[in-house]
Amino acid sequence: MTDPLTNLITTYHELNAAVVDELHEEPSALEFMRYVATHRPFVVRRAVSEWKACRKWDAGYLRQTMGDEEVRVAVTPSGNADAVVERKEDDTLLFVEPHEIFEPFAEFLDSVVQQSSSSSSTTAAGHVKYAQTQNDNLRNEYSPLFPDVPANIPFARIALGQKAEAINLWLGDDRSTTAMHKDNYENLYCQIRGEKEFVLLSPGEMACVNERVLGRGRYVPGSAAAAATSSSGDDGDDDDDTRMVGDLEVQLDVHAERVPVATWDPDEPEKHATAYSHLAKPLRVTLREGDMLYLPSMWYHKVSQRVGEEGFVCAVNYWYDMDFAGSHWASTSFVRDVYYAEQMRPQYPRLEVGEERAEGSE
Amino acid sequence: MTDPLTNLITTYHELNAAVVDELHEEPSALEFMRYVATHRPFVVRRAVSEWKACRKWDAGYLRQTMGDEEVRVAVTPSGNADAVVERKEDDTLLFVEPHEIFEPFAEFLDSVVQQSSSSSSTTAAGHVKYAQTQNDNLRNEYSPLFPDVPANIPFARIALGQKAEAINLWLGDDRSTTAMHKDNYENLYCQIRGEKEFVLLSPGEMACVNERVLGRGRYVPGSAAAAATSSSGDDGDDDDDTRMVGDLEVQLDVHAERVPVATWDPDEPEKHATAYSHLAKPLRVTLREGDMLYLPSMWYHKVSQRVGEEGFVCAVNYWYDMDFAGSHWASTSFVRDVYYAEQMRPQYPRLEVGEERAEGSE
Repeated sequence: MTDPLTNLITTYHELNAAVVDELHEEPSALEFMRYVATHRPFVVRRAVSEWKACRKWDAGYLRQTMGDEEVRVAVTPSGNADAVVERKEDDTLLFVEPHEIFEPFAEFLDSVVQQSSSSSSTTAAGHVKYAQTQNDNLRNEYSPLFPDVPANIPFARIALGQKAEAINLWLGDDRSTTAMHKDNYENLYCQIRGEKEFVLLSPGEMACVNERVLGRGRYVPGSAAAAATSSSGDDGDDDDDTRMVGDLEVQLDVHAERVPVATWDPDEPEKHATAYSHLAKPLRVTLREGDMLYLPSMWYHKVSQRVGEEGFVCAVNYWYDMDFAGSHWASTSFVRDVYYAEQMRPQYPRLEVGEERAEGSE
Repeated sequence: MTDPLTNLITTYHELNAAVVDELHEEPSALEFMRYVATHRPFVVRRAVSEWKACRKWDAGYLRQTMGDEEVRVAVTPSGNADAVVERKEDDTLLFVEPHEIFEPFAEFLDSVVQQSSSSSSTTAAGHVKYAQTQNDNLRNEYSPLFPDVPANIPFARIALGQKAEAINLWLGDDRSTTAMHKDNYENLYCQIRGEKEFVLLSPGEMACVNERVLGRGRYVPGSAAAAATSSSGDDGDDDDDTRMVGDLEVQLDVHAERVPVATWDPDEPEKHATAYSHLAKPLRVTLREGDMLYLPSMWYHKVSQRVGEEGFVCAVNYWYDMDFAGSHWASTSFVRDVYYAEQMRPQYPRLEVGEERAEGSE
């Protein structure tokens, strides 16, 4: 009998093409609901290209609209916010959150655009900044920009019978990536500037992602820089501001509860692979300016990006609460439970009886 | 760590009420799609009461419309078509199909109605007859009656983007029951005459139903009666006709492939229970004349019935192909695989080390 987890993954792939459906106009609420029902992603090309955001958002307009509003910015050494990091001291894997700073929007944007236009993207002290707070920031921190996008995606509001739970703005440069993870939301992801490359895995491929329960850490400025960063309201230019953070070091948070994290990366398939990873069939889709992606709840996704002509990458996504009723949540949890039960089952060594005897007779 | 199958069932029940939603008007296509998406049943009270079938189908009208059309009738000793039967000789469980006869519709209906009006429903030779061929019979055998029902259920046709794959008529008396089983169809079940009582279990409760792979059998007339039944076109009255079949005996079909069958019955919960059966929360719903039930694909259902004033029970159901894409089929198969893997895993006896030592020291 085939192992159930293997069977689950191969059956899923037998029944579902390893491509993301491409639509060329928005689905009706009913058509959308069919995608929600099967938990399958799709992309609508040019769905949002007529949004005011798509027509207007260049660096000048954003700077003018947001001005000196303070925004929360994630700062990491290499664009790896909320990512798995191997600690040098002891090779331990940690789930590391970014260093966070507040800075006036205009300064933040300048440093993003300047970094993108610089010929060398690997400047020693060039930390990566990313506006990526997923806390409904477009209706809060970035509310001056909110009128430039619709308050809801009509087909989703009608189909799901609810308004968006959170609307988030994402703004950064080429170097930020979002490591493989999943969210408990139905997600409509709209590309405004630049491109994003999504790598997707269905929830049933959980056994492929090598989920491990990791300790948590956070990037913090190196001790030498710590004192300097405590002075706020600094007016220096952006390079100074970035440099001010100094080296970022991983600080283990010994009090934080350990957290389950996907450690396998389909782009480095040999590293951190499980016995199931080779069965995964990651879907890949590139969102270009004006495209919209439906990313079903609990799908794993890894996101990388490329700046557009304006020198930055910008997207807006709408999160709608997923339906925990029915079988979707329960089934997905079940896959996870079976995976962990299998990991914990004692693996008796195979007895190679013939060989043992041969040895004994010598 | 809790056993995954236990967790699956209890999580499902935590997230879903153990009742069937009651609607008082037909859902829209979109509302229906939400039920399909969560694989949750609902009943619409009085949804079909204005159908011509509901207004017209009494014994006289049916007899007049169908006349002497030959119909295929299932005959069983106690109303147990397609059911698990314990063979007396060796206590083996078999999946037993009914004896099948062809008879003019009017004669079949007379024997159903006569049986219902008889004071004793347990006459020794009173075999149970049930028109229950699930082969699109309303558009074939019973086509004269087809104009009395709609050719499709509009909300389902629109939501699922397809026409009904099969439309079936069911006609019998009080004594027929349909044993717990599941179908790979989205099912809209419409009650025309009498009542049906459905007992439902979600696909995730697979571990409760004690699915076993059984040999197959069929009811056949006892050897003494075998010769007599081969003469067809008999014109005798219905009692004769029924009696003609003689005793029905289970005949094992040694060539037929064994088949997986649910053997647990929520109405006899102690019998054939698995370690999980006590976790089941069967949903119960009674369909009365004019009611419609949405029975989602792959839900287990057991059906019993009571005749109405007309002396028979009659229903019409619409089967729509289920969507094998997405995760529904794969997840449901996975539950089954995990269940079987657990059954087949060697159960090492618990070593009660302390006691063994005590025995050894005696």
